[in-house]
Amino acid sequence: MIQLTILSVGGLKESYLREAAAEYEKRLSAFCRLTQVQLKEQKLPDDPSEKEIASALSAEGKEILAALPQRAYKIALCVEGKQFSSPAFAERLGEVFAKGGEVALVIGSSHGLSDDVKAACDLRLSVSEMTFPHQLMRVLLLEILYRSFQILRGGKYHK
Amino acid sequence: MIQLTILSVGGLKESYLREAAAEYEKRLSAFCRLTQVQLKEQKLPDDPSEKEIASALSAEGKEILAALPQRAYKIALCVEGKQFSSPAFAERLGEVFAKGGEVALVIGSSHGLSDDVKAACDLRLSVSEMTFPHQLMRVLLLEILYRSFQILRGGKYHK
Repeated sequence: MIQLTILSVGGLKESYLREAAAEYEKRLSAFCRLTQVQLKEQKLPDDPSEKEIASALSAEGKEILAALPQRAYKIALCVEGKQFSSPAFAERLGEVFAKGGEVALVIGSSHGLSDDVKAACDLRLSVSEMTFPHQLMRVLLLEILYRSFQILRGGKYHK
Repeated sequence: MIQLTILSVGGLKESYLREAAAEYEKRLSAFCRLTQVQLKEQKLPDDPSEKEIASALSAEGKEILAALPQRAYKIALCVEGKQFSSPAFAERLGEVFAKGGEVALVIGSSHGLSDDVKAACDLRLSVSEMTFPHQLMRVLLLEILYRSFQILRGGKYHK
């Protein structure tokens, strides 16, 4: 079965986000074995300096790099990455799956991802030029993956 | 107080989407008077023809055009529209508000919006090259608006 891993930093605090994630996890279970690894978000003061943010991102980055499945095709979510249409992204995933490969996707904390993590990934994916809360982004990513499987299967979900 | 109208086609079926929308509506009430107009989605057969889709979009479009506040700065959400960074979009809204204007935003049904509606709007806004369910898009739009107000106010929500 297809292996997917989502690495994220910080938990889903709002109940509606947990419910949304649970719904998509259920739907995705028909298509893949999904592993979700949730890493701890570094605590920052209320108005952190650039240096404090960089230090938190670096600490989170080390944990992400240690947890990333090395054989996987690794995708980092970041606003400055490359955008894809839904069918084009599904095609990219389909190419990996066709070779028997697995895919790992990384969502950072509210300050994003360290450059180390972005450099270690095979693809930097941007969902939007706009910024969204990283917790909401996890739900968007689950929807993107579900839609990708529907497109690859030729289902009617994507019109 | 600032007037915002969201026109959308079809209801929020999932409870987690209704809860997410309610949370953002509460947060937005500190910044604006938000009116949400929900229009009926036309019923289509399971595997609709191009012609059936065009006819549904046209019927929905007529209702949208009748409900659009004419004085408002009108924004149509569509995948082929223009993308903005969060600060750039906030700035665009801020320009309208500075002139005392109101803003209306339109989200279509699962097949999108008719060309008539797109042409009647002042801006065609794209959130992503990817496609998202229109119901989820309503939550994204509420988050985008909340973030815009935070940016305009100089809050720390947007980093």
